[in-house]
Amino acid sequence: MDTSLTPFFNPKGVVVVGASTSPEKLGYGVARNLIQSGYKGAIHFAAQKSGELFERKIHTSLQDVPDPVDLAILIVPTQATPQAIEDCGKRGIKAAVIVSAGFREVGEEGAALEQHCVEIAQTYNVRLLGPNCIGTIDTHLPLDTTFLQPPMPTQGGIGFISHSGAFAAAIVDWARGQGFGFSRIVSLGNQADVNETDMLPMLTDDDATKVIVIYMESISNGRRFVQTASDVAKRKPVIALKVGRFEAGQKAAASHTGALAASDTAFDAAFEKAGVLRAETAEQMFDWARALETCPLPKGNRIGILTNAGGPGVIAADSLEHHGLVLAQLSESTLEALSAILPPAANTHNPVDMLASASPEVYAECLDILLQDQNVDGVMIILPPPPMFKAEVVAKKSVEVINKFDKPVVIALMGSTLIENAGNEFRDARVPTYPFPERAASALAVLARRAKFIADDGRQTMDNGFMVSRPSSGVSLSMDDLMQTYDIPTAPIKLARDENEAVQMANEFGYPVVMKIASPDILHKSDAGGVMLNIKDAKSLQSGYAQMIKQVKSAEPDAKIEGVHIQRQIPEGQEVIIGMARDPQFGALMMFGSGGVEVEGLKDVAFCLGPLNQAEAEGMMRKTWAGRKLKGFRNIPPVDEEAVRDVLIKLSRLAAEHEEIEEIEINPLRVLTRGAVAVDVRMKRVAMP
Amino acid sequence: MDTSLTPFFNPKGVVVVGASTSPEKLGYGVARNLIQSGYKGAIHFAAQKSGELFERKIHTSLQDVPDPVDLAILIVPTQATPQAIEDCGKRGIKAAVIVSAGFREVGEEGAALEQHCVEIAQTYNVRLLGPNCIGTIDTHLPLDTTFLQPPMPTQGGIGFISHSGAFAAAIVDWARGQGFGFSRIVSLGNQADVNETDMLPMLTDDDATKVIVIYMESISNGRRFVQTASDVAKRKPVIALKVGRFEAGQKAAASHTGALAASDTAFDAAFEKAGVLRAETAEQMFDWARALETCPLPKGNRIGILTNAGGPGVIAADSLEHHGLVLAQLSESTLEALSAILPPAANTHNPVDMLASASPEVYAECLDILLQDQNVDGVMIILPPPPMFKAEVVAKKSVEVINKFDKPVVIALMGSTLIENAGNEFRDARVPTYPFPERAASALAVLARRAKFIADDGRQTMDNGFMVSRPSSGVSLSMDDLMQTYDIPTAPIKLARDENEAVQMANEFGYPVVMKIASPDILHKSDAGGVMLNIKDAKSLQSGYAQMIKQVKSAEPDAKIEGVHIQRQIPEGQEVIIGMARDPQFGALMMFGSGGVEVEGLKDVAFCLGPLNQAEAEGMMRKTWAGRKLKGFRNIPPVDEEAVRDVLIKLSRLAAEHEEIEEIEINPLRVLTRGAVAVDVRMKRVAMP
Repeated sequence: MDTSLTPFFNPKGVVVVGASTSPEKLGYGVARNLIQSGYKGAIHFAAQKSGELFERKIHTSLQDVPDPVDLAILIVPTQATPQAIEDCGKRGIKAAVIVSAGFREVGEEGAALEQHCVEIAQTYNVRLLGPNCIGTIDTHLPLDTTFLQPPMPTQGGIGFISHSGAFAAAIVDWARGQGFGFSRIVSLGNQADVNETDMLPMLTDDDATKVIVIYMESISNGRRFVQTASDVAKRKPVIALKVGRFEAGQKAAASHTGALAASDTAFDAAFEKAGVLRAETAEQMFDWARALETCPLPKGNRIGILTNAGGPGVIAADSLEHHGLVLAQLSESTLEALSAILPPAANTHNPVDMLASASPEVYAECLDILLQDQNVDGVMIILPPPPMFKAEVVAKKSVEVINKFDKPVVIALMGSTLIENAGNEFRDARVPTYPFPERAASALAVLARRAKFIADDGRQTMDNGFMVSRPSSGVSLSMDDLMQTYDIPTAPIKLARDENEAVQMANEFGYPVVMKIASPDILHKSDAGGVMLNIKDAKSLQSGYAQMIKQVKSAEPDAKIEGVHIQRQIPEGQEVIIGMARDPQFGALMMFGSGGVEVEGLKDVAFCLGPLNQAEAEGMMRKTWAGRKLKGFRNIPPVDEEAVRDVLIKLSRLAAEHEEIEEIEINPLRVLTRGAVAVDVRMKRVAMP
Repeated sequence: MDTSLTPFFNPKGVVVVGASTSPEKLGYGVARNLIQSGYKGAIHFAAQKSGELFERKIHTSLQDVPDPVDLAILIVPTQATPQAIEDCGKRGIKAAVIVSAGFREVGEEGAALEQHCVEIAQTYNVRLLGPNCIGTIDTHLPLDTTFLQPPMPTQGGIGFISHSGAFAAAIVDWARGQGFGFSRIVSLGNQADVNETDMLPMLTDDDATKVIVIYMESISNGRRFVQTASDVAKRKPVIALKVGRFEAGQKAAASHTGALAASDTAFDAAFEKAGVLRAETAEQMFDWARALETCPLPKGNRIGILTNAGGPGVIAADSLEHHGLVLAQLSESTLEALSAILPPAANTHNPVDMLASASPEVYAECLDILLQDQNVDGVMIILPPPPMFKAEVVAKKSVEVINKFDKPVVIALMGSTLIENAGNEFRDARVPTYPFPERAASALAVLARRAKFIADDGRQTMDNGFMVSRPSSGVSLSMDDLMQTYDIPTAPIKLARDENEAVQMANEFGYPVVMKIASPDILHKSDAGGVMLNIKDAKSLQSGYAQMIKQVKSAEPDAKIEGVHIQRQIPEGQEVIIGMARDPQFGALMMFGSGGVEVEGLKDVAFCLGPLNQAEAEGMMRKTWAGRKLKGFRNIPPVDEEAVRDVLIKLSRLAAEHEEIEEIEINPLRVLTRGAVAVDVRMKRVAMP
């Protein structure tokens, strides 16, 4: 952990620079929150005008602020910020939050001022948060350096990094209504210095933080983020909401891969590589976070549904399948035990429908039975207002059972006033509730994903990761040399002007070869006798050459004949595309899928950030129809999957070691019963400076 | 409208059969709700035991119940239900709600009892709702025949048909918390008699109902539903949540079309044909309903975003694009007007970011400017808690502006306690709010979809609809005859045993033809000289025949030669699949897409319920890559799109007029520069009884 960042969440003393006695000023709000938060360190105020605030002296110079003090909150006029940073440096304050706006976000002049701030900060070794941010909150320490309207955010286990202060503020209020809370919150603002990657370890190393959520609008250093996040994700779940998905500008691409590799695709690949869970919506991000914060992880993806009504049970079953979970097959003993306590009209099979008459005791007993079943990895309880009982009693009884087991249980708590007290019961017991089965299913699914990720040992990502990449040699190898260096088989085609050249080339390529007449005037080579396949030796090639020239001359007497094209005969097989486009933020983005000219139309492609390991290459293949059918399908014979996987890995290594290559694409790669051949390869290098 | 159903929502008098004085009994709850609902018609009670309830006499015989009475709510023991229905019939009560459960849902015996009820009801012309249902509610009449816990559902404009009573009950409570309400609610239960299709017109003809939502688990009569719903959808928006999506059993299919045409696909196609909006989740169904209930429809899909914070503005912009809407390009005068009132650091381009300092007045003025812009079809206001102002004042000022225009405005109202009062302001003004921009965008999108549907005049569906279908002739036409009858060009292939037969067939097919050696022993026909293309006349065919036999015999002396296959030469072109599988509920389900053997793997297919009109056929083509590339792509030349569309329509007509055909599939249809040819056609007929 970077200890220079410690003061942002755990300062020894804080000074509010620009503290104000006017309640409508931000400088008042920050002072108020610091005091009200219950922060136990030293609290100091400074401003141009001396005075008193919250029974504390307002100093007119930072030099007068007594020890301890290691964090400054700067609420000073934009133009005065550089001087304030310098004052901090001189006073020995090594961390500052710049609340003021009016920097990079307003144009060139502001950007220059921001740059000036950074330079001064570097001179005095001051770390900067912001500008244009709302600061930090630690609900457990506690500490609140923001000016947000009180009360402080609810205490909880979610660490929250937000680019946007307004988004963070709205979420804090929303979360209060939803009944969940935060451990640490930081808004990054313009990220002149400290960025999301810097802050990740600050939340990871915080014991109160059980799960980390990031709201991001851009990325400062893609590769560093992936590296740090993948370390973090092995320890704590990380969920990201990346907005600006559709901003991805149009760029001129030299390959299909380049055309398809939009910026958002790279973010997808980067999150996957790092083990970061990408949420689709803000609501989903926190639905997931609440489950990951409080639930034990399931051993598998087999879910039991417990309901007192058929309809919501069907919704739940649908949603589980939609999210890749499966309805648990209940064991015989479970079915018997359920039958013993449920009325005959109830459904003891999953989803277990106890009927509307189910009492709190029946809910609890059935839940106990389900959680005992070895075939059940987790349970969704569906609780619409029970017609004859109070929902809160169901909640209370259920919680007792939930606490006995180490399996995740989430609640679809449907309704409003009639289930409000039940909601409080579950909340107090740290059992996540969702207003509908669909959202509860999504939460269970993310638990299963996380469990699988942990079981796969962090998906073994990064094991051949960024560190392996050797710097480019600087020597521009030819395409053929590159393919040879990385042991990617190719099938070059060459023009032979006479039979001796033809034999020479065939010897070079190896037999069998294909010979095709080389003439700009002949469209239908076959019809003119201008194609000869499966030539097995030099003798057949020589006699074939003479025969072909004769046949063609007789069929097309006026055609200009330049010679013949010789190519190693590549057997029939399946064809795929393998490509790489270099993303400016994340580096080599690998693509695999259905090739040909239709790549962009069909879009049967998958992406993964390079360099690839075996599991990642296989993952890309499984995601596409092109990859799945390599095993064979109907009358399409199986081909050499491993050869494809190997070429994918080799090309990703090539991309990692040759950063001067911007795009490279094998299209098609012909995949044979044994082996695979790059039939056509294209490449685009960075223009040399 | 079926007037026999009128008593369910607008009875002259209601009798509760099985009324009870015990507050824990359903028979008490129904009596209480009837009284408390404020229902102005006659309310009667009947039970085995005489007495008094809510100052009314409890009759011991239905015969004693005085006029007016035309609706009975039956809360009697399951076994006593048939007798109760008979009593109703004899008393002249023609509509009954069966609340009791224990019928079809519990097994064979219950099913028999249910059937018995239906027969008695038919005998006495009594319409039945249920059994196993919770009855009906009309908040405007008012009327409440259910036993749901009071208070009654909030009054509103959403008509709600639910298969599940428990789901309806939970939604009613949830909706109260969300601040929206209902016009009419009906739970259908087992649908022994009245089903969802019957109830649709009851909500459509109700003036208070602005939008209809249906929660469905199955369908009673698919074709009738599509027909009725498509009439209804032209008048009022209909939203369906169909659950049990993943239940679709595996069925043995004779074609790719059959294999891919799962039951849920048929529901998708049915809803689309009928103009019913299919929601993915319960929450989405009501998000959509609230917008459709209260908002004017937009003229187009260009949306303005008004925000006081950048982050949520980006989320909103992303979501709009995700839902197929576009960010409005603001006009010059709009930009100028915004600049005049916003601070320099604000963003006047869409999304319009007024900055955190935006006052209620600035919100209102900017909204006014946006709504005046001809380029803006609708607006999303983003309202997180404003740091310096009260959100409810922003709401109040905004509502005044919203009411001046006939454009839809939805609110992303982010937060909880800090925006609660603002929520009430918007609620009272009937302006829909959503907790996040993503959900607000989805609501705007459904408004745009509805507007387009109306503009397209009900999507011109059904104009060659079900009525056109002639009944099958009963004569089993051969495949060739069928193709000829419906004018679908084919390319039959025939075996000629000598050169005369070959010439005869070629004359039949028309020149040019292809001739291929017919021999079970020759794998590589080309290599053996066994293929001749582009034969232009009889003379060439004759000489070619002799030559081919000679060549092949010389190349493969031991091969058994059966003759030659003659086929009309079909030029190169693109290949697609066109198929039909008959869905048991909805009838002919048409499929179009990428053909070959990979159909099921690639899944580049679209479905539409037949019979197809031109717009529908073209819609299917646009949805698939196979259809889009008919126009040409890169080096793939364009082919005859219209020919494909025509074959689609013709095959759908064939399917409509030949109900004995269960599946039929053209794979591939070769599409040429002009015209299209069915190269291979397969068909499966219903086994004749």
